[in-house]
Amino acid sequence: MNIKVVTKILDANDRIADTNRRKLKAAGIYTINLMGAPGAGKTSLLECVIGRLKSGLRIGVIEGDIAGTDDARRIALHGVPVVQINTGGACHLDANMIGSVLDSLPLAEIDVLIIENVGNLVCPAEFSLGEDMKIMVSSITEGHDKPCKYPLMFQKSSALILNKTDLLPYMNTDMGKFKADALSLNPKIKIFEVSCKTQDGVGEFCDWLSGLR
Amino acid sequence: MNIKVVTKILDANDRIADTNRRKLKAAGIYTINLMGAPGAGKTSLLECVIGRLKSGLRIGVIEGDIAGTDDARRIALHGVPVVQINTGGACHLDANMIGSVLDSLPLAEIDVLIIENVGNLVCPAEFSLGEDMKIMVSSITEGHDKPCKYPLMFQKSSALILNKTDLLPYMNTDMGKFKADALSLNPKIKIFEVSCKTQDGVGEFCDWLSGLR
Repeated sequence: MNIKVVTKILDANDRIADTNRRKLKAAGIYTINLMGAPGAGKTSLLECVIGRLKSGLRIGVIEGDIAGTDDARRIALHGVPVVQINTGGACHLDANMIGSVLDSLPLAEIDVLIIENVGNLVCPAEFSLGEDMKIMVSSITEGHDKPCKYPLMFQKSSALILNKTDLLPYMNTDMGKFKADALSLNPKIKIFEVSCKTQDGVGEFCDWLSGLR
Repeated sequence: MNIKVVTKILDANDRIADTNRRKLKAAGIYTINLMGAPGAGKTSLLECVIGRLKSGLRIGVIEGDIAGTDDARRIALHGVPVVQINTGGACHLDANMIGSVLDSLPLAEIDVLIIENVGNLVCPAEFSLGEDMKIMVSSITEGHDKPCKYPLMFQKSSALILNKTDLLPYMNTDMGKFKADALSLNPKIKIFEVSCKTQDGVGEFCDWLSGLR
Protein backbone atom coordinates (compact mmCIF):
# COMPACT_ATOMS: atom_id res chain seq x y z
CA MET A 1 0.00 0.00 0.00
CA ASN A 2 1.43 3.34 -1.08
CA ILE A 3 0.05 6.21 0.99
CA LYS A 4 0.98 9.63 -0.28
CA VAL A 5 1.16 12.26 2.41
CA VAL A 6 1.21 15.97 1.63
CA THR A 7 3.86 17.06 4.09
CA LYS A 8 4.33 20.50 2.65
CA ILE A 9 0.92 22.05 2.25
CA LEU A 10 2.48 25.37 1.27
CA ASP A 11 4.37 23.66 -1.57
CA ALA A 12 1.06 22.28 -2.84
CA ASN A 13 -0.40 25.78 -2.68
CA ASP A 14 2.59 27.22 -4.53
CA ARG A 15 2.12 24.82 -7.44
CA ILE A 16 -1.46 26.03 -7.94
CA ALA A 17 -0.29 29.63 -7.48
CA ASP A 18 2.17 29.10 -10.36
CA THR A 19 -0.69 27.89 -12.57
CA ASN A 20 -2.70 31.00 -11.67
CA ARG A 21 0.33 33.20 -12.36
CA ARG A 22 0.87 31.73 -15.82
CA LYS A 23 -2.80 32.15 -16.69
CA LEU A 24 -2.86 35.77 -15.47
CA LYS A 25 0.41 36.62 -17.27
CA ALA A 26 -0.91 35.06 -20.49
CA ALA A 27 -3.89 37.43 -20.22
CA GLY A 28 -1.54 40.39 -19.67
CA ILE A 29 -2.83 40.98 -16.15
CA TYR A 30 -0.85 42.50 -13.26
CA THR A 31 -2.14 41.00 -10.01
CA ILE A 32 -2.10 42.47 -6.51
CA ASN A 33 -2.85 40.59 -3.27
CA LEU A 34 -4.29 43.23 -0.91
CA MET A 35 -4.06 42.22 2.75
CA GLY A 36 -4.72 43.71 6.18
CA ALA A 37 -6.58 43.34 9.48
CA PRO A 38 -10.39 43.48 9.66
CA GLY A 39 -11.53 47.07 9.24
CA ALA A 40 -8.14 48.41 8.11
CA GLY A 41 -9.89 49.99 5.12
CA LYS A 42 -8.96 47.61 2.30
CA THR A 43 -12.30 47.98 0.51
CA SER A 44 -12.34 51.76 1.03
CA LEU A 45 -8.85 52.00 -0.47
CA LEU A 46 -9.97 49.84 -3.40
CA GLU A 47 -12.91 52.19 -3.99
CA CYS A 48 -10.56 55.18 -3.99
CA VAL A 49 -8.17 53.47 -6.41
CA ILE A 50 -10.95 52.39 -8.76
CA GLY A 51 -12.50 55.85 -8.75
CA ARG A 52 -9.20 57.47 -9.74
CA LEU A 53 -7.70 54.90 -12.10
CA LYS A 54 -10.55 53.13 -13.88
CA SER A 55 -10.68 55.62 -16.76
CA GLY A 56 -7.13 54.69 -17.81
CA LEU A 57 -6.75 51.21 -16.35
CA ARG A 58 -9.17 48.29 -16.59
CA ILE A 59 -9.45 46.99 -13.02
CA GLY A 60 -10.95 43.68 -11.90
CA VAL A 61 -11.53 42.60 -8.30
CA ILE A 62 -11.79 39.36 -6.34
CA GLU A 63 -13.25 39.84 -2.85
CA GLY A 64 -12.41 37.34 -0.11
CA ASP A 65 -14.54 37.12 3.03
CA ILE A 66 -15.58 34.47 5.51
CA ALA A 67 -19.22 35.28 4.78
CA GLY A 68 -21.39 37.86 3.04
CA THR A 69 -21.23 39.87 -0.17
CA ASP A 70 -21.02 43.41 1.29
CA ASP A 71 -17.65 44.20 -0.26
CA ALA A 72 -18.45 42.81 -3.73
CA ARG A 73 -21.62 44.90 -3.79
CA ARG A 74 -19.65 48.02 -2.85
CA ILE A 75 -17.15 47.35 -5.65
CA ALA A 76 -19.82 46.46 -8.23
CA LEU A 77 -21.33 49.94 -7.79
CA HIS A 78 -18.14 51.30 -9.39
CA GLY A 79 -18.85 49.36 -12.59
CA VAL A 80 -15.83 47.04 -12.54
CA PRO A 81 -15.94 43.24 -12.78
CA VAL A 82 -15.93 41.61 -9.34
CA VAL A 83 -16.27 38.10 -7.90
CA GLN A 84 -16.92 37.34 -4.23
CA ILE A 85 -15.29 34.31 -2.61
CA ASN A 86 -16.78 33.18 0.70
CA THR A 87 -14.21 31.03 2.46
CA GLY A 88 -16.84 29.68 4.86
CA GLY A 89 -14.50 29.76 7.82
CA ALA A 90 -11.00 29.74 6.35
CA CYS A 91 -9.07 32.78 7.61
CA HIS A 92 -7.22 33.41 4.32
CA LEU A 93 -7.53 32.95 0.58
CA ASP A 94 -5.45 30.23 -1.04
CA ALA A 95 -4.33 29.63 -4.62
CA ASN A 96 -6.99 27.00 -5.26
CA MET A 97 -9.80 29.39 -4.33
CA ILE A 98 -8.41 31.97 -6.76
CA GLY A 99 -7.91 29.38 -9.51
CA SER A 100 -11.50 28.28 -9.18
CA VAL A 101 -12.94 31.75 -9.85
CA LEU A 102 -10.57 33.13 -12.51
CA ASP A 103 -12.85 31.93 -15.31
CA SER A 104 -15.74 33.90 -13.80
CA LEU A 105 -13.89 37.11 -14.66
CA PRO A 106 -13.54 38.65 -18.16
CA LEU A 107 -9.75 38.25 -18.09
CA ALA A 108 -9.25 39.71 -21.58
CA GLU A 109 -10.79 42.96 -20.36
CA ILE A 110 -8.66 43.38 -17.21
CA ASP A 111 -5.28 45.13 -16.88
CA VAL A 112 -4.93 44.98 -13.10
CA LEU A 113 -6.56 42.36 -10.88
CA ILE A 114 -6.79 43.29 -7.21
CA ILE A 115 -7.53 40.44 -4.82
CA GLU A 116 -8.82 41.65 -1.46
CA ASN A 117 -7.87 38.97 1.04
CA VAL A 118 -9.79 37.99 4.20
CA GLY A 119 -9.27 40.54 6.99
CA ASN A 120 -6.41 38.98 8.97
CA LEU A 121 -2.87 40.15 9.76
CA VAL A 122 -1.47 36.62 9.97
CA CYS A 123 -2.23 33.76 7.56
CA PRO A 124 -2.92 35.62 4.28
CA ALA A 125 0.81 36.45 4.14
CA GLU A 126 1.66 32.73 4.08
CA PHE A 127 -0.30 31.73 0.99
CA SER A 128 0.77 32.83 -2.47
CA LEU A 129 -2.20 33.30 -4.81
CA GLY A 130 -0.15 33.78 -7.99
CA GLU A 131 0.09 37.55 -7.51
CA ASP A 132 2.82 39.88 -8.78
CA MET A 133 2.83 41.90 -5.59
CA LYS A 134 1.53 41.87 -2.03
CA ILE A 135 0.29 45.18 -0.58
CA MET A 136 -0.90 45.61 2.99
CA VAL A 137 -3.19 48.15 4.63
CA SER A 138 -2.98 48.99 8.32
CA SER A 139 -5.22 51.48 10.05
CA ILE A 140 -3.32 53.88 12.31
CA THR A 141 -6.01 53.11 14.91
CA GLU A 142 -4.53 49.60 15.24
CA GLY A 143 -1.46 51.13 16.91
CA HIS A 144 2.25 51.32 16.21
CA ASP A 145 2.99 47.93 17.80
CA LYS A 146 1.71 45.97 14.82
CA PRO A 147 5.03 45.41 12.96
CA CYS A 148 6.63 43.78 16.02
CA LYS A 149 3.58 41.61 16.74
CA TYR A 150 2.76 40.51 13.16
CA PRO A 151 6.13 40.61 11.39
CA LEU A 152 5.51 38.27 8.44
CA MET A 153 2.99 40.42 6.58
CA PHE A 154 5.27 43.44 6.83
CA GLN A 155 8.18 41.31 5.54
CA LYS A 156 6.23 39.96 2.58
CA SER A 157 4.55 43.19 1.43
CA SER A 158 6.02 45.55 -1.17
CA ALA A 159 3.92 48.46 0.07
CA LEU A 160 2.31 49.44 3.36
CA ILE A 161 -0.66 51.79 3.36
CA LEU A 162 -1.07 53.50 6.73
CA ASN A 163 -4.76 54.38 6.48
CA LYS A 164 -7.15 56.62 8.46
CA THR A 165 -4.54 59.34 9.03
CA ASP A 166 -7.46 61.76 9.53
CA LEU A 167 -7.79 60.18 13.00
CA LEU A 168 -4.16 60.93 13.98
CA PRO A 169 -5.04 64.03 16.05
CA TYR A 170 -7.19 61.84 18.32
CA MET A 171 -4.76 58.90 18.68
CA ASN A 172 -1.51 58.19 20.52
CA THR A 173 -0.13 56.27 17.54
CA ASP A 174 3.59 56.95 17.09
CA MET A 175 3.90 57.10 13.30
CA GLY A 176 7.68 57.40 13.47
CA LYS A 177 7.96 54.13 15.39
CA PHE A 178 5.35 52.43 13.18
CA LYS A 179 7.31 53.28 10.03
CA ALA A 180 10.74 52.61 11.54
CA ASP A 181 9.69 49.16 12.78
CA ALA A 182 8.12 48.29 9.41
CA LEU A 183 11.29 49.38 7.60
CA SER A 184 13.45 47.46 10.04
CA LEU A 185 11.53 44.27 9.14
CA ASN A 186 11.54 45.11 5.44
CA PRO A 187 13.91 47.90 4.31
CA LYS A 188 12.40 47.89 0.79
CA ILE A 189 8.77 48.38 1.84
CA LYS A 190 7.21 51.50 0.28
CA ILE A 191 5.09 53.37 2.84
CA PHE A 192 2.12 55.60 2.03
CA GLU A 193 0.20 57.64 4.59
CA VAL A 194 -3.38 57.81 3.40
CA SER A 195 -6.85 58.84 4.49
CA CYS A 196 -9.54 57.28 2.35
CA LYS A 197 -11.99 59.65 4.05
CA THR A 198 -10.23 62.94 3.17
CA GLN A 199 -8.40 61.44 0.14
CA ASP A 200 -5.08 62.69 1.57
CA GLY A 201 -2.25 60.66 0.08
CA VAL A 202 -4.53 58.64 -2.19
CA GLY A 203 -3.22 60.39 -5.31
CA GLU A 204 0.40 59.58 -4.47
CA PHE A 205 -0.45 55.91 -3.94
CA CYS A 206 -2.43 55.75 -7.20
CA ASP A 207 0.43 57.36 -9.14
CA TRP A 208 2.82 54.74 -7.79
CA LEU A 209 0.33 51.94 -8.50
CA SER A 210 -0.27 52.96 -12.09
CA GLY A 211 3.50 53.07 -12.68
CA LEU A 212 3.95 49.41 -11.66
CA ARG A 213 2.91 47.72 -14.91
CA MET B 1 0.44 -1.72 10.27
CA ASN B 2 -2.04 0.36 12.22
CA ILE B 3 -1.90 4.02 11.25
CA LYS B 4 -3.92 6.30 13.47
CA VAL B 5 -5.20 9.41 11.77
CA VAL B 6 -6.52 12.39 13.70
CA THR B 7 -9.52 13.24 11.56
CA LYS B 8 -11.07 15.68 13.96
CA ILE B 9 -8.41 18.11 15.05
CA LEU B 10 -10.95 20.18 16.96
CA ASP B 11 -12.00 17.09 18.95
CA ALA B 12 -8.36 16.57 19.87
CA ASN B 13 -8.16 20.20 20.98
CA ASP B 14 -11.36 19.84 23.01
CA ARG B 15 -9.93 16.92 24.97
CA ILE B 16 -6.95 19.02 26.04
CA ALA B 17 -9.27 21.96 26.76
CA ASP B 18 -11.23 19.71 29.14
CA THR B 19 -8.03 18.84 30.99
CA ASN B 20 -7.22 22.56 31.30
CA ARG B 21 -10.76 23.26 32.50
CA ARG B 22 -10.57 20.61 35.24
CA LYS B 23 -7.21 21.92 36.41
CA LEU B 24 -8.43 25.55 36.49
CA LYS B 25 -11.67 24.60 38.26
CA ALA B 26 -9.72 22.59 40.85
CA ALA B 27 -7.74 25.76 41.58
CA GLY B 28 -10.96 27.77 41.89
CA ILE B 29 -10.14 29.91 38.87
CA TYR B 30 -12.68 31.54 36.55
CA THR B 31 -11.16 31.75 33.06
CA ILE B 32 -11.90 34.19 30.24
CA ASN B 33 -10.76 33.87 26.62
CA LEU B 34 -10.42 37.47 25.36
CA MET B 35 -10.52 37.73 21.56
CA GLY B 36 -10.61 40.41 18.87
CA ALA B 37 -8.93 41.80 15.76
CA PRO B 38 -5.39 43.26 15.87
CA GLY B 39 -5.50 46.67 17.52
CA ALA B 40 -9.07 46.33 18.84
CA GLY B 41 -7.78 47.29 22.27
CA LYS B 42 -7.69 43.95 24.09
CA THR B 43 -4.55 44.79 26.08
CA SER B 44 -5.80 48.31 26.87
CA LEU B 45 -9.07 46.85 28.15
CA LEU B 46 -7.12 44.35 30.25
CA GLU B 47 -5.08 47.20 31.76
CA CYS B 48 -8.32 49.06 32.64
CA VAL B 49 -9.84 45.94 34.19
CA ILE B 50 -6.73 45.12 36.22
CA GLY B 51 -6.44 48.71 37.43
CA ARG B 52 -10.01 48.70 38.72
CA LEU B 53 -10.43 45.14 39.99
CA LYS B 54 -7.06 43.94 41.23
CA SER B 55 -7.60 45.22 44.78
CA GLY B 56 -10.58 42.87 45.23
CA LEU B 57 -9.84 40.14 42.72
CA ARG B 58 -6.59 38.30 42.10
CA ILE B 59 -6.10 38.45 38.33
CA GLY B 60 -3.67 36.42 36.24
CA VAL B 61 -2.97 36.85 32.54
CA ILE B 62 -1.76 34.74 29.62
CA GLU B 63 -0.76 36.81 26.58
CA GLY B 64 -0.87 35.25 23.11
CA ASP B 65 1.02 36.81 20.22
CA ILE B 66 2.73 35.65 17.04
CA ALA B 67 5.93 37.34 18.22
CA GLY B 68 7.20 39.75 20.85
CA THR B 69 6.58 40.38 24.53
CA ASP B 70 5.14 43.92 24.35
CA ASP B 71 1.80 42.97 25.86
CA ALA B 72 3.20 40.85 28.70
CA ARG B 73 5.51 43.71 29.64
CA ARG B 74 2.56 46.14 29.69
CA ILE B 75 0.60 43.78 31.95
CA ALA B 76 3.55 43.02 34.24
CA LEU B 77 3.79 46.74 35.07
CA HIS B 78 0.44 46.34 36.85
CA GLY B 79 1.93 43.80 39.24
CA VAL B 80 -0.14 40.77 38.26
CA PRO B 81 1.26 37.37 37.21
CA VAL B 82 1.57 37.09 33.44
CA VAL B 83 2.96 34.59 30.93
CA GLN B 84 3.61 35.37 27.26
CA ILE B 85 2.99 32.69 24.63
CA ASN B 86 4.58 33.31 21.21
CA THR B 87 2.77 31.13 18.69
CA GLY B 88 5.56 31.62 16.13
CA GLY B 89 3.15 31.92 13.23
CA ALA B 90 -0.06 30.24 14.40
CA CYS B 91 -2.95 32.69 14.14
CA HIS B 92 -4.71 31.54 17.32
CA LEU B 93 -4.05 29.99 20.71
CA ASP B 94 -5.01 26.35 21.20
CA ALA B 95 -5.64 24.26 24.30
CA ASN B 96 -2.24 22.60 24.19
CA MET B 97 -0.43 25.95 24.27
CA ILE B 98 -2.44 26.95 27.34
CA GLY B 99 -1.90 23.59 29.03
CA SER B 100 1.84 23.91 28.55
CA VAL B 101 2.07 27.24 30.44
CA LEU B 102 -0.46 26.76 33.28
CA ASP B 103 2.25 25.51 35.63
CA SER B 104 4.22 28.72 35.05
CA LEU B 105 1.46 30.66 36.82
CA PRO B 106 0.83 30.74 40.60
CA LEU B 107 -2.62 29.14 40.18
CA ALA B 108 -3.36 29.10 43.92
CA GLU B 109 -3.05 32.89 43.95
CA ILE B 110 -5.39 33.61 41.02
CA ASP B 111 -9.18 34.13 41.08
CA VAL B 112 -9.69 35.16 37.45
CA LEU B 113 -7.40 34.14 34.59
CA ILE B 114 -7.72 36.24 31.46
CA ILE B 115 -6.20 34.77 28.30
CA GLU B 116 -5.61 37.40 25.62
CA ASN B 117 -5.75 35.55 22.32
CA VAL B 118 -3.82 36.39 19.13
CA GLY B 119 -5.32 39.39 17.32
CA ASN B 120 -7.60 37.72 14.77
CA LEU B 121 -11.38 37.85 14.22
CA VAL B 122 -11.52 34.34 12.75
CA CYS B 123 -9.72 31.27 14.11
CA PRO B 124 -9.49 32.03 17.85
CA ALA B 125 -13.27 31.48 18.03
CA GLU B 126 -12.84 27.90 16.80
CA PHE B 127 -10.47 26.65 19.51
CA SER B 128 -11.63 26.09 23.06
CA LEU B 129 -8.87 26.72 25.59
CA GLY B 130 -10.77 25.40 28.60
CA GLU B 131 -12.26 28.80 29.41
CA ASP B 132 -15.53 29.50 31.22
CA MET B 133 -16.41 32.35 28.89
CA LYS B 134 -15.38 33.96 25.62
CA ILE B 135 -15.40 37.77 25.44
CA MET B 136 -14.63 39.74 22.28
CA VAL B 137 -13.42 43.30 21.74
CA SER B 138 -14.13 45.19 18.54
CA SER B 139 -12.95 48.72 17.88
CA ILE B 140 -15.67 50.96 16.46
CA THR B 141 -13.04 52.05 13.91
CA GLU B 142 -13.28 48.58 12.33
CA GLY B 143 -16.77 49.45 11.06
CA HIS B 144 -20.28 48.14 11.58
CA ASP B 145 -19.96 45.46 8.91
CA LYS B 146 -17.90 43.15 11.14
CA PRO B 147 -20.74 40.93 12.50
CA CYS B 148 -21.88 39.98 8.99
CA LYS B 149 -18.34 39.33 7.76
CA TYR B 150 -16.99 37.46 10.81
CA PRO B 151 -20.09 35.81 12.30
CA LEU B 152 -18.55 32.95 14.32
CA MET B 153 -16.78 35.07 16.95
CA PHE B 154 -19.95 37.06 17.59
CA GLN B 155 -21.90 33.79 17.92
CA LYS B 156 -19.45 32.25 20.36
CA SER B 157 -18.88 35.27 22.63
CA SER B 158 -20.88 35.98 25.77
CA ALA B 159 -19.95 39.67 25.70
CA LEU B 160 -18.96 42.17 23.03
CA ILE B 161 -16.94 45.24 24.01
CA LEU B 162 -17.33 48.00 21.43
CA ASN B 163 -14.14 49.93 22.17
CA LYS B 164 -12.74 53.36 21.20
CA THR B 165 -16.14 55.07 21.43
CA ASP B 166 -14.23 58.36 21.94
CA LEU B 167 -13.61 58.25 18.17
CA LEU B 168 -17.32 58.01 17.29
CA PRO B 169 -17.66 61.74 16.43
CA TYR B 170 -15.04 61.27 13.69
CA MET B 171 -16.37 58.00 12.23
CA ASN B 172 -19.29 56.92 10.07
CA THR B 173 -19.78 53.76 12.14
CA ASP B 174 -23.48 52.97 12.56
CA MET B 175 -23.60 51.73 16.17
CA GLY B 176 -27.27 50.78 15.88
CA LYS B 177 -26.56 48.47 12.97
CA PHE B 178 -23.40 47.10 14.62
CA LYS B 179 -25.34 46.13 17.76
CA ALA B 180 -28.44 44.90 15.92
CA ASP B 181 -26.36 42.62 13.65
CA ALA B 182 -24.39 41.25 16.62
CA LEU B 183 -27.64 40.56 18.50
CA SER B 184 -29.18 38.95 15.44
CA LEU B 185 -26.25 36.48 15.33
CA ASN B 186 -26.32 35.98 19.09
CA PRO B 187 -29.41 37.27 20.95
CA LYS B 188 -27.78 36.58 24.33
CA ILE B 189 -24.60 38.58 23.74
CA LYS B 190 -24.08 41.32 26.33
CA ILE B 191 -22.85 44.53 24.68
CA PHE B 192 -20.75 47.21 26.37
CA GLU B 193 -19.76 50.51 24.75
CA VAL B 194 -16.38 51.46 26.14
CA SER B 195 -13.52 53.89 25.68
CA CYS B 196 -10.34 52.69 27.32
CA LYS B 197 -8.94 56.17 26.67
CA THR B 198 -11.63 58.20 28.48
CA GLN B 199 -12.68 55.24 30.73
CA ASP B 200 -16.30 55.72 29.59
CA GLY B 201 -18.21 52.48 30.12
CA VAL B 202 -15.24 50.71 31.74
CA GLY B 203 -16.87 50.76 35.17
CA GLU B 204 -20.06 49.12 33.90
CA PHE B 205 -18.07 46.36 32.23
CA CYS B 206 -15.96 45.79 35.36
CA ASP B 207 -19.09 45.61 37.54
CA TRP B 208 -20.53 42.95 35.25
CA LEU B 209 -17.22 41.07 35.14
CA SER B 210 -16.79 40.98 38.91
CA GLY B 211 -20.33 39.60 39.26
CA LEU B 212 -19.61 36.57 37.09
CA ARG B 213 -17.86 34.36 39.62
